[in-house]
Amino acid sequence: MLSVFIIGNGKIAHHLVQAFLKTDVQIAGVYGRDIAKVNSFAAKYQIPAYSDLSKIPAQCDVYFLTVSDQVIKLISEQVKVHGLLVHCSGMMPISVLQNHTHYGSFWPIQSFSENNMVDFKNIPICIEASSEEDSRILEALADRISRKVQIVTQDQRQSLHLAAVLVNNFSNHLFALAAAFLESKSISFDLLKPLIEETVNKINYMEPRYAQTGPAIRNDIATIDMHKKALAENLPLLHIYDVLSRSIIEHKDNSNE
Amino acid sequence: MLSVFIIGNGKIAHHLVQAFLKTDVQIAGVYGRDIAKVNSFAAKYQIPAYSDLSKIPAQCDVYFLTVSDQVIKLISEQVKVHGLLVHCSGMMPISVLQNHTHYGSFWPIQSFSENNMVDFKNIPICIEASSEEDSRILEALADRISRKVQIVTQDQRQSLHLAAVLVNNFSNHLFALAAAFLESKSISFDLLKPLIEETVNKINYMEPRYAQTGPAIRNDIATIDMHKKALAENLPLLHIYDVLSRSIIEHKDNSNE
Repeated sequence: MLSVFIIGNGKIAHHLVQAFLKTDVQIAGVYGRDIAKVNSFAAKYQIPAYSDLSKIPAQCDVYFLTVSDQVIKLISEQVKVHGLLVHCSGMMPISVLQNHTHYGSFWPIQSFSENNMVDFKNIPICIEASSEEDSRILEALADRISRKVQIVTQDQRQSLHLAAVLVNNFSNHLFALAAAFLESKSISFDLLKPLIEETVNKINYMEPRYAQTGPAIRNDIATIDMHKKALAENLPLLHIYDVLSRSIIEHKDNSNE
Repeated sequence: MLSVFIIGNGKIAHHLVQAFLKTDVQIAGVYGRDIAKVNSFAAKYQIPAYSDLSKIPAQCDVYFLTVSDQVIKLISEQVKVHGLLVHCSGMMPISVLQNHTHYGSFWPIQSFSENNMVDFKNIPICIEASSEEDSRILEALADRISRKVQIVTQDQRQSLHLAAVLVNNFSNHLFALAAAFLESKSISFDLLKPLIEETVNKINYMEPRYAQTGPAIRNDIATIDMHKKALAENLPLLHIYDVLSRSIIEHKDNSNE
């Protein structure tokens, strides 16, 4: 039976613990700097709580460093254990953990929220490790909670992280910009939700480049000009409209070559 | 019983006919310039086909002009009927139809595909008409096929169209850019689909501006710099990354004021 220990008590920690609780993996405990917070976390899942890093159990198979990128290196240097230490970051090289013998990365491709529990089974987990053997251990763990486990290189993981910013952060920002624009016209953003759902539904049966619609891909200059005119007093949004419309037109030209 | 006639045999025409076939609305026929194409369309739904505009029935309640924006005015001038003539455009002013006595717009907020049949019940329909009475007729028709009918002003309809470009066309383009970037790294775009689904799922219980995650909203300059470095040889994508990241940071600053 594999045993794991969770360092950190934020969103990823919650999701990992909930996922492992459904498996045969033993959760040896959770560490958090804030005693009250880590006690509350541990009580919720009935697992041991630790607020002193020097006292965490030393014999677990895998230690999950679920802290933010900025403190991964710092905290990893305070962790004195023999087991495999992994961070959960899409961007940090695993070499920041190289003061440990066994180290790696265990990165779920998801934007976790505190309140919304996503089904981990469908979340791809990217694995990278310092050795073949460590990679197999992480794969065994990941397979228990997800159906989509990928062994990746550092460049692939970082590329996925960058692409995730495009599809998640930037799309969401476009939603926010649209909502603010509609609010200024006394229109409910709810009216766009079915369209947004269909936009995403399409990627399940069509490559995005073939699903492109709208004035830019049609080279419908008249509509583009009307939109730009409507944004004449909203220069930041006009700039984004212009940059993305040009990009769509540019990619269309490329694919026609 | 209301009767309608469909001018045009493209994607919107297909979706409208399929929706009205489930109601008590009588579909008096469909017009298309291409005889073979309109015959095939009409046969599919067992409705009369017309390829001569001067011969279409003159006594229907509502005529749907489902043609592209560029030819709405031209074709509307060839339509000699007494009933209410509406276009299905998000952008065109209804005044382009003012050579008719009764005119308006009947615009479903959706990006229709040929093959994928969306459930019309959930598609918002925006209505604008030349008179109160015409508006009520369109509302009665729209209510039969959709649960989300909105009477809008021209400015509201055009604003919704612009916002639809942001959330649909631009998001899809970001998906396409991400897919191309990952392809260059030999990574499957499929790995991002659960994240994209969750991005959209979130808008159902959270305003987009509060759902924003990622390096820009966290002011995580280290990650942003790593991403930019990874895009050093992809200047068009670097530019988009930069513009949208700055916009997220800018909006964060505004909301903190």
